[in-house]
Amino acid sequence: MNNFMFKNPTKLIFGRDTVQRIGEEVKESGIDKVLLLYGKGSIYKNGIYEAAVKALKENGIEFKELSGVKANPELSKVHECIEVLKKENLQGIIAIGGGSVIDTAKAAAAGARYESDIWQVFEGNGEIKEAIPIFTVLTISSAGSEMNSCCIMTNEDENKKMAFTSDYIYPKVSIVDPAAQFTLSKEQTVNGAIDVMSRVLELYFEGVKNSDVMDEVLEGILRTIIKHVQVLINEPDNYNSRAELALCAVLPTNGYYSIGTKGCPLVSHQLEHPLSIFFDIAPGAGLSIVFPSWMKYVYKYNIKKFVRFANKIFGIEQGTEDERVLKAIELLRDFYKSLGAPVSLKEAGIRYEDLAKLAANAAELGNARTIWVLGKEDILQIYKLSYE
Amino acid sequence: MNNFMFKNPTKLIFGRDTVQRIGEEVKESGIDKVLLLYGKGSIYKNGIYEAAVKALKENGIEFKELSGVKANPELSKVHECIEVLKKENLQGIIAIGGGSVIDTAKAAAAGARYESDIWQVFEGNGEIKEAIPIFTVLTISSAGSEMNSCCIMTNEDENKKMAFTSDYIYPKVSIVDPAAQFTLSKEQTVNGAIDVMSRVLELYFEGVKNSDVMDEVLEGILRTIIKHVQVLINEPDNYNSRAELALCAVLPTNGYYSIGTKGCPLVSHQLEHPLSIFFDIAPGAGLSIVFPSWMKYVYKYNIKKFVRFANKIFGIEQGTEDERVLKAIELLRDFYKSLGAPVSLKEAGIRYEDLAKLAANAAELGNARTIWVLGKEDILQIYKLSYE
Repeated sequence: MNNFMFKNPTKLIFGRDTVQRIGEEVKESGIDKVLLLYGKGSIYKNGIYEAAVKALKENGIEFKELSGVKANPELSKVHECIEVLKKENLQGIIAIGGGSVIDTAKAAAAGARYESDIWQVFEGNGEIKEAIPIFTVLTISSAGSEMNSCCIMTNEDENKKMAFTSDYIYPKVSIVDPAAQFTLSKEQTVNGAIDVMSRVLELYFEGVKNSDVMDEVLEGILRTIIKHVQVLINEPDNYNSRAELALCAVLPTNGYYSIGTKGCPLVSHQLEHPLSIFFDIAPGAGLSIVFPSWMKYVYKYNIKKFVRFANKIFGIEQGTEDERVLKAIELLRDFYKSLGAPVSLKEAGIRYEDLAKLAANAAELGNARTIWVLGKEDILQIYKLSYE
Repeated sequence: MNNFMFKNPTKLIFGRDTVQRIGEEVKESGIDKVLLLYGKGSIYKNGIYEAAVKALKENGIEFKELSGVKANPELSKVHECIEVLKKENLQGIIAIGGGSVIDTAKAAAAGARYESDIWQVFEGNGEIKEAIPIFTVLTISSAGSEMNSCCIMTNEDENKKMAFTSDYIYPKVSIVDPAAQFTLSKEQTVNGAIDVMSRVLELYFEGVKNSDVMDEVLEGILRTIIKHVQVLINEPDNYNSRAELALCAVLPTNGYYSIGTKGCPLVSHQLEHPLSIFFDIAPGAGLSIVFPSWMKYVYKYNIKKFVRFANKIFGIEQGTEDERVLKAIELLRDFYKSLGAPVSLKEAGIRYEDLAKLAANAAELGNARTIWVLGKEDILQIYKLSYE
């Protein structure tokens, strides 16, 4: 097992009717003027906006609103946020949304206290030393950004999607009310679940080869997601399944479930990022396409672990090692398909002649800390495996 | 799933050669005069004392020493600590040891800032509002006190063993070097493992009946402990198994793995406490005696969960539900026996005529938040089941 240091300062408030806690949490932090940041207004329809605004008013918290964060968040919105934060002298950010809104909040919270353009930090050319406090109200379980120190952003002018981590951008308080996700579409729910599964699988295949207990834990999370996302397809307002999925999403990337590992390797995200940059494909959808192919391309380098996966997740016990692994990959792909997720680049509207461009982008931006370093040629092969 | 709030401020430093980090961690906290608290001097023999003292000196940390904390920690030692803390105006406590030393540090850290006798707080007649910072260097994985807000103490004058929890007593920094446990005796290792297993089993049977993912996680921890404690019996210096066990001990009681549950019910500890008060039996040894009998006494009230346990931990698939559960309890008891742990009160030197006195003590002190409230008569029956 690797040495590790772990500390996570986020206060997680989880459960029914917890959205209204946002007011008192901000107040208790001694903050009375915040930025209220959200996406495209779905929070007007499901009552979240109303509940949050009421709680803020009741607690005497003044707020400025900024909306329009896209599903694949962009740097220009971060700049817009920073301007409002500075102009209005705001002391905190309340991010109501999923990973895109939270990551925009994180980049802006750090950017407002950074001497130069925050994009420098994404590119590894600068370091954060402070950030404005962030409070989150989660509306979709997917990226796990609600309880971690990671931030992913697209620089749309430069066609780059990059990430940074910093202890300063952990949300101070995160509210996760599973019932807030009842109104998500089937597609959003499935994309979120596949995003979480991909993070778990990455830790499992790459990071935790030396820890039995973390293998056990990650396998348990995978089985739980597989079970409950299938319930949610038919019963989007099943509270229990929403809660299971929400908990599974918080766990793998908050640090606790990756301790003893090499961190969050994000290798399949390296493969998925170009799809979102050039074709605006949601991360979950991109991952359902590329993940099985990535597994097929690399499994031989760690075959024992993939054989274990085949057994623990799909109960496969028969056949040669290769047969078992390939069967498991096929079953995973079939599972994604059964959820209605795309499983080929072609199906997602990408032309075969675009693959080289996508591979070049992925290779250029690849900052994945992975045991399998993927070069441009590897990535192209994986995209080809993902094509049909 | 139940609503929950979770926050754990402890910084966990885990791995080989981490003991020496204690000096810089204390220094970074702005503290330069501490109490160094430990047990009976085993830390002189295994190099931990030397490494810690060297690190403190190198970082210019002044320290007063206090030793002699017993395996079942007593209130008189807490009072002694408080006196030294106040007299010497110390700003922090470094607890080098297991749960007994850490819990003594916690009680003293709170007691030194409490206006009256800290025992009031254990009895539920007072509340803590601050505590001196605590730093720990763990020498035995057992109670999980290194990363939680709980403190258990015996008042030896009143024959009471009681607990309290407070956010103020989370250790600020906890150092867990699995190699520091190479020199533990087989008995200490086994007792520690059974202590951890009991905490996991309590959460599993009582707390998490509504969360699939937490059931999965707790089952994974149990299987990992069972595997690695068997390795350690023969290879006490197997780093990997020490690390697995140490990680399994930190996890179930740090809050993360009991989220969505009703907290740490500690029902079997209610049964074990009188054994330590009157017969000075180590918690792990007391638990290996009473836990299987407790299971036998209560399983019918939640039989589905016990059937699941039989399947997931011992692979039992055949027989009626009762047969499967009883078989699993027998296998658990056999497993404890195979580790050399006591499995009967008689074997531990307790007379049959003492059982009523023990039951009365357990019933009087029983503050367990449990779905099975055990009265004196229930407890007596369980002790009788545990006798031979």
